[in-house]
Amino acid sequence: MHRFHVFVRQAAASLGSATDVNCFSDGAWCLTRRPFSSGLGHRPPTGGGQGEPGFSTVAEVQAAVSAPNGKSRQKILTLQSMNPQVKAVEYAVRGPIVLKAGEIEKELQNGIQKPFSEVIKANIGDAHAMGQQPITFLRQVVALCTYPGLLDNPHFPKDAKKRAMRILQGCDGNSLGSYSASQGIKCIREDVARFIKQRDGGVPADPDNIYLTTGATDGITSILKILVSGWGKSRTGVMIPIPQYPLYSALISELDAVQVNYYLDEENCWALDVKELRRVLNRAREYCNPNVLCIINPGNPTGQVQNRRCIEEVIHFAWEENLFLLADEVYQENVYAEDCQFHSFKKVLYEMGPDYFNNVELASFHSTSKGYMGECGYRGGYMEVLNLHPEIQGQLVKMLSVRLCPPVSGQAAADVMVNPPTPEDESYEQFMREKNAVLSNLAKKAKLTEELFNQVPGIQCNPLQGAMYAFPRILLPPRAIEAAKDHSMAADMFYCMRLLEETGICVVPGSGFGQRDGTYHFRMTILPPAEKLKILLEKVNAFHMRFLKEYA
Amino acid sequence: MHRFHVFVRQAAASLGSATDVNCFSDGAWCLTRRPFSSGLGHRPPTGGGQGEPGFSTVAEVQAAVSAPNGKSRQKILTLQSMNPQVKAVEYAVRGPIVLKAGEIEKELQNGIQKPFSEVIKANIGDAHAMGQQPITFLRQVVALCTYPGLLDNPHFPKDAKKRAMRILQGCDGNSLGSYSASQGIKCIREDVARFIKQRDGGVPADPDNIYLTTGATDGITSILKILVSGWGKSRTGVMIPIPQYPLYSALISELDAVQVNYYLDEENCWALDVKELRRVLNRAREYCNPNVLCIINPGNPTGQVQNRRCIEEVIHFAWEENLFLLADEVYQENVYAEDCQFHSFKKVLYEMGPDYFNNVELASFHSTSKGYMGECGYRGGYMEVLNLHPEIQGQLVKMLSVRLCPPVSGQAAADVMVNPPTPEDESYEQFMREKNAVLSNLAKKAKLTEELFNQVPGIQCNPLQGAMYAFPRILLPPRAIEAAKDHSMAADMFYCMRLLEETGICVVPGSGFGQRDGTYHFRMTILPPAEKLKILLEKVNAFHMRFLKEYA
Repeated sequence: MHRFHVFVRQAAASLGSATDVNCFSDGAWCLTRRPFSSGLGHRPPTGGGQGEPGFSTVAEVQAAVSAPNGKSRQKILTLQSMNPQVKAVEYAVRGPIVLKAGEIEKELQNGIQKPFSEVIKANIGDAHAMGQQPITFLRQVVALCTYPGLLDNPHFPKDAKKRAMRILQGCDGNSLGSYSASQGIKCIREDVARFIKQRDGGVPADPDNIYLTTGATDGITSILKILVSGWGKSRTGVMIPIPQYPLYSALISELDAVQVNYYLDEENCWALDVKELRRVLNRAREYCNPNVLCIINPGNPTGQVQNRRCIEEVIHFAWEENLFLLADEVYQENVYAEDCQFHSFKKVLYEMGPDYFNNVELASFHSTSKGYMGECGYRGGYMEVLNLHPEIQGQLVKMLSVRLCPPVSGQAAADVMVNPPTPEDESYEQFMREKNAVLSNLAKKAKLTEELFNQVPGIQCNPLQGAMYAFPRILLPPRAIEAAKDHSMAADMFYCMRLLEETGICVVPGSGFGQRDGTYHFRMTILPPAEKLKILLEKVNAFHMRFLKEYA
Repeated sequence: MHRFHVFVRQAAASLGSATDVNCFSDGAWCLTRRPFSSGLGHRPPTGGGQGEPGFSTVAEVQAAVSAPNGKSRQKILTLQSMNPQVKAVEYAVRGPIVLKAGEIEKELQNGIQKPFSEVIKANIGDAHAMGQQPITFLRQVVALCTYPGLLDNPHFPKDAKKRAMRILQGCDGNSLGSYSASQGIKCIREDVARFIKQRDGGVPADPDNIYLTTGATDGITSILKILVSGWGKSRTGVMIPIPQYPLYSALISELDAVQVNYYLDEENCWALDVKELRRVLNRAREYCNPNVLCIINPGNPTGQVQNRRCIEEVIHFAWEENLFLLADEVYQENVYAEDCQFHSFKKVLYEMGPDYFNNVELASFHSTSKGYMGECGYRGGYMEVLNLHPEIQGQLVKMLSVRLCPPVSGQAAADVMVNPPTPEDESYEQFMREKNAVLSNLAKKAKLTEELFNQVPGIQCNPLQGAMYAFPRILLPPRAIEAAKDHSMAADMFYCMRLLEETGICVVPGSGFGQRDGTYHFRMTILPPAEKLKILLEKVNAFHMRFLKEYA
C-alpha cells in the first residue's frame, strides 16, 4: 500500500500538478490538494511550524496551523479523526487514473506536446459524454414539463405534450419544482409497474412495490443500508461477484458490513457457478452472517448475460440458504449476443412457482443512465421489491422521506424510459429509429471490440454479450510485473497508466473491480463512436505489442 | 411509545385505510402496509400459521409464511433484523399526520362528507405545491439545456440562451445527460463562488471549496457522514438546536452519533445564547466527544434571524472549544423583519480576522428549494467548506464519487439561483418583478401570521423574522393534556390531529422538532397564497377557541 502511494504521488508531482494522488492497493485512491497551495483558507501560518516536533505524521503536521493565541492548532477533521468506514471506501471507476487523465487534458490545453491530441475517457459508461445523442422524445417530454409554456408550441409532437401533461398532473401544483412523494410520483410508479409486467410476460407488478430512485446507485444504497446489522460473527455479510462494480465494495465499506467475494468463471465466459456460491457461503458463515446475495446481470464489468437456468439455480440457492437477493439489472436493455436473452430475476422467480415467488425476498434495480437512453445526468431509476416484510416497507419509506424525494426531472426521464411511444403515437417512428440506431451500434461495437482484442497475443477477451464494457485479460510478462513492483504499483495499474500516458486512452485497471490473484485486466467502455472505437482499439493493441516487446 | 402506537393504529383503522400508521413518542412514525392486503407477494399462505406459536411478536408472526418444503419460513429482513440505526430514525415533517392527511384526501375524493372541501398541506416548505409559480428565467434556462433545439426559438430571450450554452459547454458531450464531476460542474461552482463573494461583500470564495449537492440535505448528510467516528465516550457528539429541523436528528440516528441538544430561547424570539451552548457542551463531554455544532439561520422551524453579534459569539465559542461548524443557511434569502439582516457565518468569520478565518472549520449549505425560487423538485444546492484539511477534501471527493454526481438539471437550476440576470440583461426586469413579488408576499404573510395568531388567547407566536414557517406555542388546558394521554398521544399531536380532522389543515406537532418539556407548538408554512393563508389562520384560530372551550 505504502509503496504504491509513493509512486503515484511521484507521478502526480512529475506532472507539475497542484494535486497529489494517493493510491492504495487494488485501485483504491484518494486525491489530496497540496496543503497551502491555494485559497486563503489554506495559507501557512506565518512563523508556523513550532508545533511540528510533536506530530508523528505528515498529516498531523499539516493539520497543525497557528491559532489566535499563537499556539499550534490541530484540525478537528483529519484522516485520523474521520469516519474510518468512509476512509476505507474505494471507488476505482473515478479513481487515480481518471484524475491523471484530467491532468493530461489540462496539459494538452496548455499546449504541451503529447503523442496524442486528446484524452479519451473510456473509463465510465457515460454515453452522452462519448457523443451519443439524447432520445428526442425523452428530452421533449422533460422540456415540456420544465417549461409548460411550450405546450402551445407546434414544434412539439402531441404525444410528448400528452405525456408531459400526465406527469405534471402527478406533481403537486403541476410543477416539477414541488417535492414528490418520497417513494416517487404515483403515476410514474404505475407506469413502471406496467413496464415490468409487460417485460416479464404478464407477471404482476405492484406500484406500491416500486421506489423511484436517484439513479440505481441510490436504490442499492437504500436497501443495503436497511439490511446491514449485527456485530462480530453476526454482522451482515454481502456476497458480491468478483469482478464487481465497485459501488458494492464501497457501500459495504461505508456500512461496515462484511464483503463476501464469489468468483465468476472467466474460462466459462464469466458464468456464475452455484457451487462457487455455496463454497463461499459456507466459509463466510464461520465469521459473519452472509444473508445478502448481489447479482449483476448483464455483468459489469464482465459483460456476460446469465442464462435462464443459471438464474433458476441462483434463486433456488437463495431460497434454500435464506438469502436476500439484490438483482442489479441496469443493463437489461443492453444485450447484444444473438444467443443471449435477458431474463429478469422476478420473472424467473414467478415461473418457478408460488412457493418461490411468495417467499424469496428480492430487490431489483434499473436506471435511466444505461440502456439506449444513457441519461446519466438525470439520476433517474427505480427499485422493485418483492416479498418485503410490510413493516420493512414502512421503514424504507420513512428512511427515504428524510432525503425528501428523488429529483423530479429524473423521475420524468424514468417515466419515458418505462413508457416509450407506441406504434400509434406520432413520435413512434423517430423514437424507434433512434433506439435501434443506438442498440445496433452497440451490438456492432461489442463484436468489433471482442474481435480486435482477440487478434492480439496476450489479450484474451470474452464475448461482450451485454452491458457496455470489455474486460479483457492481459497476460503481462514477468518483467513487466517486476517493473510495476519497482514503481510500487499493481501491475495492471502500471499498464493502464502507461497506456494513458502513451495513447491518451483512459481505462480502469482490473484491480479496481477485483480479479483472481495473478490475473490482470482492464475495463473499457465500448461507447465511443464506431470509427473512433476502432482507432482506439488499434491504439490499445499497438501499445500492448510495444509493451510486450519492451518487457519480453 | 406503545400507547401512542396503539392509538394511531386505531385512528388509521377507523379511517378504513389499508395502511397502519405506527407512531412513536416525539412524533416519530412509520407506516405499515397491512400484511396480505394487496399484491401476490403479500398473500397469506394457504394453511399457514403452523409456525406461529414459536413467535413472540406480531411482526414475527407476520414474517412467517409457508415455505416450499411446507415448513414455516422466517423473513430475512424484519424489524428485528434490520439496521437498528435506521429503525431509530424519526422524520416528523413527512410523518403520521401527513399520512393521515393523504387518507382524508382520498376520502374526500370518494365523496365522503367532511366539514371542509380540501386538505391544505401546510406541513412542508413546498412552495410550488402551494401554487407559487416558477421563476421564468430559471425554467427557460433549464428547458434550453434540456432541449437545445430550442436555442433557435425566438420565444426564448438571448440571456437565457447564453446561460444555457454556458452550462452545456460545462457538460461533457454538451449534454445534461452526461455525468458531471462528482463535486459538480466547474463553471457552476465558479458561479457559486462569485455569488458568495458578492453576497459577503468581497470575502474570497474558492470554487474548489464548493460542492454542488442533491439539495442541502445531501450536503449535510455528506459532511456529517465523514465527521462521525469513535466509540463510547469518544463517539462524535453533534450539537443541534431545539427546536430543530428533524433532518439533523434523523442523520444522527442513522450514523449512530450522539445528539446533543441545546435549547433556543423562546422568550427571547428563539435567540441562541452562548451560555446555553457552554452548559450543554460541558455536560456532553462527560459522555461523548461533542465536536460538531449545527446552526440553522434563519431558523427552521423557529423563524428567527441571528444578529451579527450572536454569530460572532458562536464563532468565538467554536474556535475556543474546537468545534466543527455546520451553518444551515438555506433560508438566507428569506428575511422579512425590517430590523433583521442575514449575515453568513463565513462573512462574520472573515471579519473577525485571519486567526479565525484561517482556522475555524466550517461547512455551510444553500439550496434551490427555498428562497424565492422554491424549486424543491430539482434537488439542487451547494455546500461551501472552509479550512477543511486538504486530505479530507480528497476523502470527500472520493466519497461523493461513489454516487457519481448530483442531478445535472439540479446543478443547472442552482446556477440560475447564484447567477440571476443583471440589470443589463433582457430578462432582468421580469426576473426582478417575479422575485420581488414572491419575497414581498412572503414578508406580508409572515406579518399577517404573527398578528393573527397573537390575537388568540392561548396562542403565542414569536415574530417570523425569516424562513417560511410559524412555530407558535399553544397553551393547552390540563384537561386537553389528559385527553391526549387517554388517547396515548403527545398533547400537540392530539391537537394537530384534531385540527386536521376538523379543518383539513395539516401542520406538524412541535414534538417532531423538539421543544422544552411541558411546552407545545406546531409548525405551519406561510406558503399558501395570502387570501388562502388568511382563511387558514382564521380557521386555526376558530378551532383553537373551540378546543380551549371543549377542554376548559
